[in-house]
Amino acid sequence: MRQASNARKRVAILGASGYTGAELIRLLSRHPQADLVLLTGERHADQPVDAVFPHLGGLDLPRLVPMERADWAGLDVDVVFCALPHGTTQDVVSSLLAPNGTASTDTRPRLKGDAKVIDLSADFRLFDTDTYAQWYGHAHRAPGLQRTAVYGLTEFAREAIAAARLVACPGCYPTTALLPLVPALEAGAIDADNIIIDAKSGVSGAGRAAKEASLFAEVSEGIHAYGVAAHRHAPEIEQELSRAAGAPIIVNFTPHLMPMNRGILATIYVSLRNGWTADDLRRSLAERFTGEPFVRVVPKGVAPATRHVRGSNHCLVGVFEDRLKGRAIVVSVLDNLVKGSAGQAVQNFNLMCELEETRGLEQAPLFP
Amino acid sequence: MRQASNARKRVAILGASGYTGAELIRLLSRHPQADLVLLTGERHADQPVDAVFPHLGGLDLPRLVPMERADWAGLDVDVVFCALPHGTTQDVVSSLLAPNGTASTDTRPRLKGDAKVIDLSADFRLFDTDTYAQWYGHAHRAPGLQRTAVYGLTEFAREAIAAARLVACPGCYPTTALLPLVPALEAGAIDADNIIIDAKSGVSGAGRAAKEASLFAEVSEGIHAYGVAAHRHAPEIEQELSRAAGAPIIVNFTPHLMPMNRGILATIYVSLRNGWTADDLRRSLAERFTGEPFVRVVPKGVAPATRHVRGSNHCLVGVFEDRLKGRAIVVSVLDNLVKGSAGQAVQNFNLMCELEETRGLEQAPLFP
Amino acid sequence: MRQASNARKRVAILGASGYTGAELIRLLSRHPQADLVLLTGERHADQPVDAVFPHLGGLDLPRLVPMERADWAGLDVDVVFCALPHGTTQDVVSSLLAPNGTASTDTRPRLKGDAKVIDLSADFRLFDTDTYAQWYGHAHRAPGLQRTAVYGLTEFAREAIAAARLVACPGCYPTTALLPLVPALEAGAIDADNIIIDAKSGVSGAGRAAKEASLFAEVSEGIHAYGVAAHRHAPEIEQELSRAAGAPIIVNFTPHLMPMNRGILATIYVSLRNGWTADDLRRSLAERFTGEPFVRVVPKGVAPATRHVRGSNHCLVGVFEDRLKGRAIVVSVLDNLVKGSAGQAVQNFNLMCELEETRGLEQAPLFP
Amino acid sequence: MRQASNARKRVAILGASGYTGAELIRLLSRHPQADLVLLTGERHADQPVDAVFPHLGGLDLPRLVPMERADWAGLDVDVVFCALPHGTTQDVVSSLLAPNGTASTDTRPRLKGDAKVIDLSADFRLFDTDTYAQWYGHAHRAPGLQRTAVYGLTEFAREAIAAARLVACPGCYPTTALLPLVPALEAGAIDADNIIIDAKSGVSGAGRAAKEASLFAEVSEGIHAYGVAAHRHAPEIEQELSRAAGAPIIVNFTPHLMPMNRGILATIYVSLRNGWTADDLRRSLAERFTGEPFVRVVPKGVAPATRHVRGSNHCLVGVFEDRLKGRAIVVSVLDNLVKGSAGQAVQNFNLMCELEETRGLEQAPLFP
Repeated sequence: MRQASNARKRVAILGASGYTGAELIRLLSRHPQADLVLLTGERHADQPVDAVFPHLGGLDLPRLVPMERADWAGLDVDVVFCALPHGTTQDVVSSLLAPNGTASTDTRPRLKGDAKVIDLSADFRLFDTDTYAQWYGHAHRAPGLQRTAVYGLTEFAREAIAAARLVACPGCYPTTALLPLVPALEAGAIDADNIIIDAKSGVSGAGRAAKEASLFAEVSEGIHAYGVAAHRHAPEIEQELSRAAGAPIIVNFTPHLMPMNRGILATIYVSLRNGWTADDLRRSLAERFTGEPFVRVVPKGVAPATRHVRGSNHCLVGVFEDRLKGRAIVVSVLDNLVKGSAGQAVQNFNLMCELEETRGLEQAPLFP
Repeated sequence: MRQASNARKRVAILGASGYTGAELIRLLSRHPQADLVLLTGERHADQPVDAVFPHLGGLDLPRLVPMERADWAGLDVDVVFCALPHGTTQDVVSSLLAPNGTASTDTRPRLKGDAKVIDLSADFRLFDTDTYAQWYGHAHRAPGLQRTAVYGLTEFAREAIAAARLVACPGCYPTTALLPLVPALEAGAIDADNIIIDAKSGVSGAGRAAKEASLFAEVSEGIHAYGVAAHRHAPEIEQELSRAAGAPIIVNFTPHLMPMNRGILATIYVSLRNGWTADDLRRSLAERFTGEPFVRVVPKGVAPATRHVRGSNHCLVGVFEDRLKGRAIVVSVLDNLVKGSAGQAVQNFNLMCELEETRGLEQAPLFP
Repeated sequence: MRQASNARKRVAILGASGYTGAELIRLLSRHPQADLVLLTGERHADQPVDAVFPHLGGLDLPRLVPMERADWAGLDVDVVFCALPHGTTQDVVSSLLAPNGTASTDTRPRLKGDAKVIDLSADFRLFDTDTYAQWYGHAHRAPGLQRTAVYGLTEFAREAIAAARLVACPGCYPTTALLPLVPALEAGAIDADNIIIDAKSGVSGAGRAAKEASLFAEVSEGIHAYGVAAHRHAPEIEQELSRAAGAPIIVNFTPHLMPMNRGILATIYVSLRNGWTADDLRRSLAERFTGEPFVRVVPKGVAPATRHVRGSNHCLVGVFEDRLKGRAIVVSVLDNLVKGSAGQAVQNFNLMCELEETRGLEQAPLFP
Repeated sequence: MRQASNARKRVAILGASGYTGAELIRLLSRHPQADLVLLTGERHADQPVDAVFPHLGGLDLPRLVPMERADWAGLDVDVVFCALPHGTTQDVVSSLLAPNGTASTDTRPRLKGDAKVIDLSADFRLFDTDTYAQWYGHAHRAPGLQRTAVYGLTEFAREAIAAARLVACPGCYPTTALLPLVPALEAGAIDADNIIIDAKSGVSGAGRAAKEASLFAEVSEGIHAYGVAAHRHAPEIEQELSRAAGAPIIVNFTPHLMPMNRGILATIYVSLRNGWTADDLRRSLAERFTGEPFVRVVPKGVAPATRHVRGSNHCLVGVFEDRLKGRAIVVSVLDNLVKGSAGQAVQNFNLMCELEETRGLEQAPLFP
């Protein structure tokens, strides 16, 4: 393996006033090789970060600025983390990554030639233009970038990520489901048919927007399914599973909202291929993830819990025998704001900059 | 329909110091035709109820007494609600219901000839002695009663319940799953194979025992599966589904513990029979439950939430089309302490005593 | 005491789509002498109630209508519950209660002559026009009504409430604080100086408006003070304490927001008058509330908890000796949506209509 | 200032299977100059740490051993963190720190001569033997050590801590209250009379013991006061305030238990000395804490919230003017398991070992 670099990187976060942006600040402000030089936020422009997120007080951070006032050239940004809303990101990124036009009238802001973009929105996750248009309701406005972005599920795409200029970080649900399912399919352990993903998520995944459905009194002391058979993470899961299986796969994906801040648990019901047992599948996954710093297959009989990964970049996977003959139950947990979002983005950042992959992500989970 | 009776009934609650017992007191103390004449509790014997459950203060209730001091004859008890721990109930009930012995030395307490027992434990739910022994680890000690008890899922067994001397109230998970599944199977709408029941429960189902796993700090802000493929409610669900289908059925039943006090949500994945659609299934269930006071099939597109049944005897059922061809998703919710336990017991009490079935159960849910 | 009436009353709820409105529906839909004939809601006009509040499904309720479409004459409304936002209520009520104009052009909706209004907003709670203007930032637009409205803290104003045409129900915090403080002052047990009220509230008090500060992720797992020395319930508390003491009183009132749906706990720090002990104060309050159906002074050593009044119209009060000589600690708890709002409104409704005072409010608290 | 040392320290944690022990592991396993060489736990002896605390999986940690099997000599322990229950600690520590006896029969385990002990229990916090006996119900069994231990509220005792062999870390409530109150008294800003400390705590402070009062269903969705005028942290607060004021002080300390895992918020009601305003007090505290890495006085109008310090060693302090003339309200928040316990212990460890004081404590808070 190549020696990790000791370089420091100058980092921008676009959309720093949402939960994902705050989580990027939490991680990157303590990252020993990252300097936060630019934070954008429209609604809170010109405010200090701790006026918006008091838990980030006491850090030495630049003030929030609106995006059009960002001094890209002056700040000499190496890497941009993009935590903007879905749909608006594609215009921003295509501007930032545009080749230098010859026309002197082209004054759009752009990054220096070797700068990189790590996108946390959904804009570049789906590579098929039709699928994108079908699920997001409009034609993609940067189809060229869409086709060349690298899907940044770190454990499965290290080389491509390291070489990429634009990485599309996976959604939180897809990360939870794909980490065990992709290697299970690749090993030929499970059928591609009838994969059922019953997922339970905390509320921070819905963001900081003031919506009735996210109010404390609407969420606490209860659970409900939402977006049944219609959640936009379904095509993303299917895209990657199809790639792993080499054939189109449709899945059941049923998300539920439950009263916790952080965490996703996916209970995945699969049919084992002939000759495979649940124990075989657990062993196969354990082997696949041996040496992985952030993914751990727990021993037989142990049930992964979201509270055991809270605040960390960890994913825990458990495999159980089903009472239904020939079937297994796979349970996967992670923190949606870390491995499901900002943490995985930092992990990709490390790869893209040739830093130690775990740099800035060493914290142990916070329990209780 | 027969005219409902106006009689008052003299009622005992055995095991009144647990959550189920307290819920029975909550409901029965406001029941216009029930008089609580006996409350037993071993650990808190001789204490007033509100020393154990302060929320029940201000009611006019008898003190807790240990069971061996209960004055059955003097109290002239009409109905016994039995909320004792699993395993200990069978001895108590078989004593209470024993025919009068001739031997003058037989001094065991017993009920008067026409008194009835409503059991909320698991002791009389499984009718097959082998299945019971396999799941509970010991031979049943009252196999005669075990075979004659009526499984008290009210909506499916009204006549048998009305005529029974001993009713075994279903577990909270089985009630949630069976209410939509039994009529779906009876209608021939779904396959008996590969029924997957992913259930999420609040913590009160674990009772008031001081266990590390039920501590606030172990439960809040998280979710985990437990008892995977090994929960004792699985054989109970299978017994009733097999009866509905007329053939043995094995199911996947995967319970999860989540941070709420009350409520169970079951997401049930089923395969539709030829010619059936999810819409057909919804319509069929809606018809089946027309006129039912406590079970409601919600309109297409509406997702049932546990918080919408909190504190009430209601069960809500929703049906969704799956992205997987030929499959449907059924969501069922109820309050585990009401329709999943004490409420259904009161519903059965009303039937057994020829009272109005909804008597004492009219409260609307408490939200937020 | 006069015989309670058996009459049925035709009831309207204005602002039925907020939490307070929903709580009024929960209580009144089960009230044996109330018929809900009109529910207004602007944002959700023409929707059935259960589209807005699914927990109220299965009840036989009129659809929501916008206020200007209410057919007051045709509906023959006896009593109006007004759960509209602060500030907008005064115009509505002054129109509804206006005497019949002689001018034929006066087409404003108005109630029949003997109809009554029970207001749950803050509009008519402060009787002093200057105080109102100072705290609410505008001159009152119905000063005549403001001066004649009865402050509806039931336990202290039964006769006036029974005779009133317009009752202003107290705020949730004031109810919690005043129930023990008014009789303590009237008994001469405590000093009027330096009363400190440290209050902790659940989130439903903030209403169903989509505000960032009420999001699950902003509230759960934490606590903070808000509106310190600036909360509008302070002048309301002071008005009533001054009336009880016969001299102007200023208090410390410090509210905190904490992660629960329902409930307020006020910890009140008081200085005892010469010769009084904490035990004396407890006895005095217990005597004062003897026979009260909804207020209970708990025994020495017992700490009232909000969870013991959840969903009920109860208020529990405890009194503790302080380690500071000559001082006592009073703890008061209630459910902000019931005794702190909709429940007390129904209690006043019963008084105003000469019904049994506890009618429709008999439910025991819901725990856990 | 002296140059910080680069030495590595060999560390033991006694009582590693409670929440405080787990938090010490979380912090020390990532501390760049600490090597965890010994973890004791009686109930879970011989188990790996992650069998007891799954969130600590993936770390390279020694197994739990019972204390009597600890190989003190062989492990060459430099520093012992003692997270044992109150009452049992004094015997353990007095043995560990005993001078080498001459009698060859003295086989008690003892530390090497320059090893240090950081105690997180209450055993060495009260220096007066009578006060200890009065509040803990038995005579202290190591009164010599009791008198010489240093009270480890880091910000106020750095020199003594650095020189100490035994540091008694303050309780979580005392830390929260003392951080603002000690400098306020020392500055002569507030009266020593009638200090009222209304404190609200999360549940983890009660530890991992299986107690009914700590069950999820007993804590969630509610709040109550406990240990009113009788909590053992009162004499600890009074001891340190008396020291600061140079005269005996009695305080009101009223703790409340509320549904969150971590965090304490203390709302402190004080009387200002002549000439002082709330703004003066805020400025005075801000000056006193200038340069402190972990204590921050927030600007006027900002309300500290526990969720803004979660998982961090931070304490935030806010000061508000009271409506009562001449009084102020001080709000102080911290994470009871970090600055209120394990974090402050690590801070003291750094001082005692001449390491950088913030080492291992740099993480930003976790929100949401």
